[in-house]
Amino acid sequence: MAQPASEAKASRIVPDPPTPRAPGEEAPDVWGFADSGFQVNAAGEVEFRGSRYAISGKRIPSLLPWAEGILGVRLDPADRRASGYPTALPPRVANEPLERALAERLPAESVSVDPRVRLRHGHGHTQEDMWAIKYGRLARVPDLVVWPESADEVRLVLELVRQHGACLIPYGGGTNVTDALRCPEHERRTIVSLDLRRMNRVLWIDAENHSAEIQAGALGLEIEEQLRRHGFTLGHEPDSIELSTLGGWIATFASGMKKNRYGNIEDLVLSISATTPEGPLARPAVPRESIGADPARWLIGSEGRLGIVTSAVTKVFPLPELRRFGSVLFRDFEAGFAFLRAVQRSGVVPASVRLMDNLQFQFGQALRPARTGLAALKGTLEKAFVTKLRGFEPERMVACTLLFEGRSKEVEAQERSVYQLAARHGGMKAGGENGERGYQLTFAIAYIRDFMLEHWVLGESFETSVPWSEAQALCANVKQRLWAEHAKRGLPGRPFVSCRVTQLYDTGVCIYFYFAFHYKGVEHASEVYAELERAARDEILRSGGSLSHHHGVGKLRQPFLPRVFSPAALAWRSKLKAALDPENVLGCGNG
Amino acid sequence: MAQPASEAKASRIVPDPPTPRAPGEEAPDVWGFADSGFQVNAAGEVEFRGSRYAISGKRIPSLLPWAEGILGVRLDPADRRASGYPTALPPRVANEPLERALAERLPAESVSVDPRVRLRHGHGHTQEDMWAIKYGRLARVPDLVVWPESADEVRLVLELVRQHGACLIPYGGGTNVTDALRCPEHERRTIVSLDLRRMNRVLWIDAENHSAEIQAGALGLEIEEQLRRHGFTLGHEPDSIELSTLGGWIATFASGMKKNRYGNIEDLVLSISATTPEGPLARPAVPRESIGADPARWLIGSEGRLGIVTSAVTKVFPLPELRRFGSVLFRDFEAGFAFLRAVQRSGVVPASVRLMDNLQFQFGQALRPARTGLAALKGTLEKAFVTKLRGFEPERMVACTLLFEGRSKEVEAQERSVYQLAARHGGMKAGGENGERGYQLTFAIAYIRDFMLEHWVLGESFETSVPWSEAQALCANVKQRLWAEHAKRGLPGRPFVSCRVTQLYDTGVCIYFYFAFHYKGVEHASEVYAELERAARDEILRSGGSLSHHHGVGKLRQPFLPRVFSPAALAWRSKLKAALDPENVLGCGNG
Repeated sequence: MAQPASEAKASRIVPDPPTPRAPGEEAPDVWGFADSGFQVNAAGEVEFRGSRYAISGKRIPSLLPWAEGILGVRLDPADRRASGYPTALPPRVANEPLERALAERLPAESVSVDPRVRLRHGHGHTQEDMWAIKYGRLARVPDLVVWPESADEVRLVLELVRQHGACLIPYGGGTNVTDALRCPEHERRTIVSLDLRRMNRVLWIDAENHSAEIQAGALGLEIEEQLRRHGFTLGHEPDSIELSTLGGWIATFASGMKKNRYGNIEDLVLSISATTPEGPLARPAVPRESIGADPARWLIGSEGRLGIVTSAVTKVFPLPELRRFGSVLFRDFEAGFAFLRAVQRSGVVPASVRLMDNLQFQFGQALRPARTGLAALKGTLEKAFVTKLRGFEPERMVACTLLFEGRSKEVEAQERSVYQLAARHGGMKAGGENGERGYQLTFAIAYIRDFMLEHWVLGESFETSVPWSEAQALCANVKQRLWAEHAKRGLPGRPFVSCRVTQLYDTGVCIYFYFAFHYKGVEHASEVYAELERAARDEILRSGGSLSHHHGVGKLRQPFLPRVFSPAALAWRSKLKAALDPENVLGCGNG
Repeated sequence: MAQPASEAKASRIVPDPPTPRAPGEEAPDVWGFADSGFQVNAAGEVEFRGSRYAISGKRIPSLLPWAEGILGVRLDPADRRASGYPTALPPRVANEPLERALAERLPAESVSVDPRVRLRHGHGHTQEDMWAIKYGRLARVPDLVVWPESADEVRLVLELVRQHGACLIPYGGGTNVTDALRCPEHERRTIVSLDLRRMNRVLWIDAENHSAEIQAGALGLEIEEQLRRHGFTLGHEPDSIELSTLGGWIATFASGMKKNRYGNIEDLVLSISATTPEGPLARPAVPRESIGADPARWLIGSEGRLGIVTSAVTKVFPLPELRRFGSVLFRDFEAGFAFLRAVQRSGVVPASVRLMDNLQFQFGQALRPARTGLAALKGTLEKAFVTKLRGFEPERMVACTLLFEGRSKEVEAQERSVYQLAARHGGMKAGGENGERGYQLTFAIAYIRDFMLEHWVLGESFETSVPWSEAQALCANVKQRLWAEHAKRGLPGRPFVSCRVTQLYDTGVCIYFYFAFHYKGVEHASEVYAELERAARDEILRSGGSLSHHHGVGKLRQPFLPRVFSPAALAWRSKLKAALDPENVLGCGNG
């Protein structure tokens, strides 16, 4: 194997390890950190626990009343459906020779058969997953969990698993929304979950070539912590950045909010080191190559079925000189959408541009913490100005949030260009504070699903990408279809369907939907939700959208693969898997 | 299969076909168009024939005298080694049932067994190829050539080839420099060359979504002609753009001179339609997806061994408002290189930036047409200014050429930023004319190899990509190694080794080398050249460079694959091929 010349290594920095994570920091049964989340306080008001986010420690009095109006149902804060977590576990499939071999070769703290630990490694964050661990059950979970601390240990575990006729499922942050971590129900072999999170180091930063080698189990936050100390950033910010890992991003074709500036994961990753049933894949990174397929890149989007990513060399970027948020209000979605297109066509595109539809804009308003005194007065005045003086209708207006990053001059030039276009589309600047709030809400909103679930509202998000010309029709079609499906089934109240445009491309956009309904009295609510989500996906595909922009396929969207791939393409995918892993040692069953 | 919604089609334009190419337009035995090329005129002076290029119709009196000085040998313009083209062909392997089946199903003009036609389809443009057809022989050439006119005909031919136990090699422009079109010497089956150049249409342009579907056999010039009429460009400009095809670009991981603005081929291609032994691959293009591997993308860089690309949906871009050339002189390569890095780090990077080393700069000067009167005086004065007043040494100074494209404002902002950086690095603006000349010479220089070959100089180019930190050492190492290898063998005179930096990336650059030596009296000169090129490649790999930046692997660089891929990676590549084409119907043997 060729190695980069030793001179290259002179420019390498080896960062200190990231701050150790506190045990129990992550909640096992709901999204996010255990210290954070929505709750109803003694006064019967919604508040957000903890201190991590701007919204933390604040009362959010409008949330439930607003949701009642939208959903057309009564939401009594006291009427909670208690979580049954953890629901019953299926029997464990032991494999004594394997377990003995692992015990002989690895430290005791590297292996666990603890039921709670195994349970957590058997799901991600779909509504189906959450439902199952609280109100249903998982038909199969991993039989043991192993935490390797090096690529060598990954190789060792994979080899032992193969030798002993077991199978292995790699585990990153456990944040997928595709049932990717669900164990195949009828798997009779012992299932080993390989949790990579102890491999969380930035191994080196090459300051001269703007690259770094990062272990696959590093969380987004850990990566940024290690890089930041040396003046760099990866620039990859999926909404799950606090809890998802580099390996998971690679395995799912992740997209980051700031991809306009930094690229999506496939643009950021220069080379991948992996362990596979065939042996290790590893090679030096070069700026760009024409040497046919680099098999390691087949792991991008492979969702755990071809190999285990152990580390990757990525691009890194100097920390931006300046970072500025912005927001613009538009009369309606059409005006906002026309603005997005103008921004993309102008070639001057900020790191992030997002457009919320009216319902999502309202949602953002409903999530505003209670304001008192001057702040409340200011808010009322602002609202009056927008809706009365400027003639914006509260039921039609939409908001666009912006994030500018770069050199000061660059940011200023981008701001000039973008706000000029906004004005031409009738947009009204609504300030950096609202923009920042919009982006911060992304993290807090992730907590709402589990809170609402206990209040009889079942909700989830899904996404697609679609050409510019079809995007607006797609949004309308999906909303219409979900309303119709909801009505057809006589479900309670009204559905909540809302969307935002979260990414811009030359040829189209990414659309992100939220969908929820009140499920009190609904039998098999989780299945009903799944049915409706499938109907939405059908509508997306009919409307020219993709099967997924960045969530992936997992098991959730597998049934749709024949609608997006020709039989030959599907055969190629299967043949690749069969050729590379004939024993299906990597037995996750995804994709 | 999902189809894009019918509304999308409303925005589609169907362009008229491209201007038909004149028969015999391309020279069969040398690079380029038959009407163009270097020659020695009656007065014993070098001139460039034809009228296609800026240099066409001009005398170039300095070329041979300069080459004599550099190579340290006498080059008598009258001393030509006549080409023996076409050298003897090997016997044809007929397959009567296949030929009958093809004759029944295709028009007569779609199939040929003409020896000259078959010969041309059995090689590309390596020095080995050119040597073989003029002074040696090809051990094997295709046994028949078929020109399909549609994807259906491609499918038909592949199926018949398979049924009748023959094999097939797709043919695009025949411009590869990797021996990719060399037929495996010991192939006993009938070899069908599938020439895609009649499939040269832009099928549609989607003006709203900035995309187009283009047939694989369309030449770069034909693509641009069809798009330009409707205000668009693909923006992909490899040096071979006049003669290479979209399918060839995809099959070789092509890079275009203006990739900073438009991207390389993998960035431009949104979806690929192909015919494979398994059946057709075809799917609608969406802006971006997370659905695991799209097998059609495995064809990028596949060099003809997995399938036949029939068309691709690509991005297209509005024609730039403004296009401006520029050039800057620097005291030495180090200063020029530091400038390149500053440009890349600034984030304001023109469509193209290229840095020639001193020898290549001199080469450019030697290729200047004879100037008379005022032009000559101006040239002398300029030269005096640069070398005397500014203290630039003719034997050290280097030139950087620039191409700015975009909106007027954008171009102006880029120019300001780039020239400011140039000044900081001691650069001296040398004008747009010199910049344009530099880019135009790219096309003319391609003709020089065959001209020099007849004047006993064997030359060729090769390229790599390399991290910033190692680039300068790599250039020096490769030059040193070639000088040493040249000396070790006691070859005549001195070698010509020169390089330029042709592409910038965040993490490194592409380096393009020219290497030539005088071979009069050298036995097996072509093999000696090949040996030296292999030594250069060895040095490149030792110095941290890649096996290829954009030329590909073909058969020429196959022996180096184990140095850039792990055994597992090589096994994966082989297993993929074996699984997808178990009978090796696509029998080119590349990669």
